[in-house]
Amino acid sequence: MSQALVVLSGGQDSTTCLYWALHRFGVGQVEAVTFDYGQRHRIELDCAARIATHASVPQTVLPIDTFAALGGNALTDAGITVQADMDTQTRLPNTFVPGRNLIFLTFAAALAYQRGMCALVTGVAQTDYSGYPDCRQATIQALEQALRLGMEYALTIHTPLMFKSKADTVQMARDLGALPALADTHTCYNGVQPPCGRCPACRLRAQGFAEAGIADPLVERFRNP
Amino acid sequence: MSQALVVLSGGQDSTTCLYWALHRFGVGQVEAVTFDYGQRHRIELDCAARIATHASVPQTVLPIDTFAALGGNALTDAGITVQADMDTQTRLPNTFVPGRNLIFLTFAAALAYQRGMCALVTGVAQTDYSGYPDCRQATIQALEQALRLGMEYALTIHTPLMFKSKADTVQMARDLGALPALADTHTCYNGVQPPCGRCPACRLRAQGFAEAGIADPLVERFRNP
Repeated sequence: MSQALVVLSGGQDSTTCLYWALHRFGVGQVEAVTFDYGQRHRIELDCAARIATHASVPQTVLPIDTFAALGGNALTDAGITVQADMDTQTRLPNTFVPGRNLIFLTFAAALAYQRGMCALVTGVAQTDYSGYPDCRQATIQALEQALRLGMEYALTIHTPLMFKSKADTVQMARDLGALPALADTHTCYNGVQPPCGRCPACRLRAQGFAEAGIADPLVERFRNP
Repeated sequence: MSQALVVLSGGQDSTTCLYWALHRFGVGQVEAVTFDYGQRHRIELDCAARIATHASVPQTVLPIDTFAALGGNALTDAGITVQADMDTQTRLPNTFVPGRNLIFLTFAAALAYQRGMCALVTGVAQTDYSGYPDCRQATIQALEQALRLGMEYALTIHTPLMFKSKADTVQMARDLGALPALADTHTCYNGVQPPCGRCPACRLRAQGFAEAGIADPLVERFRNP
């Protein structure tokens, strides 16, 4: 029986968390869960599967058809264009799916409960939090309390990146030996490979690697194919 | 724009809450959301639709395919028999879906956010709470906090039945003029009509009506067809 379940999206942060969990809990003690919630960019699911396989971590893919039924956001709805800037009315980017991380963590908690794992690991960070209120420490703490009470289960949510800058996270990935895995990650909001380099997600990623003084293995992969 | 969103399962408690909300927020101010999560007893969905129609309340049905993928509980898995008693190991009934109410309320909150409604209404009660820890006041308060923080939205979760006995709830339904609607509700864990009368849910319902001194309109419907 494993100890820790990592929410693995196929992005840079969750991949770094997977390697953090392997370091913290030990090889053979870690599993991953990935959500197929109708994301426009199916490449994320391919990336997550490849990363789990390379790390020899068992991966469960859970479907969530509810966000697509709710509609109205740029991450699942092909009719909506990703905006670089925030909506002036809500002050949130239009990639915001209300409560998305709360849903992911609650389903992950249900899976952890069934399998007897007491640690959840998620790559949310409030430092670079990009306008997503469900990534903040206070939100995660309130959710942890709701999950502990609602499941009567001594679950802990680990957020190893919570107060790290993107540059800190890149250096942490290097220290954990996770840089090769980052070549398999997906970040671009426009869902293209090589990454577009212009969307907010690509720019934030590039800035983090630049500040860390480390070359992005994903960019290198397309530069030297 | 409506003010309140009621989580309507098609059962006695959520139906009573629908009429409570109509009384509290006013006709034309209330909507309902029902979750199609792969429940074995599809009759619940028919009941919820009929109740919403009779109350002239707009109803949104949202699919959730994740619980069936998680598997392993008697409410969605036809291979598992409903137990009358609790599991001796977990001290929870085997109808327990870990975190089910947390998921329902979080998706309901996302819908409320999109539609500009600030009140969620749910029929959970800790008095008769039957072993479900996600129905307790402390759980709901922690979740409300997580939702407010995670969505940056001034949402309130109303739980008008939280401290009521089943008998109190029956009397409240009578006072709200909701008794005719209760003839359309579904309670039986065995999914049959007329209700089996033997499962824990049927017994709890019958006890509530008996203690309230009121005839169950659902039972009356089958006695005098």
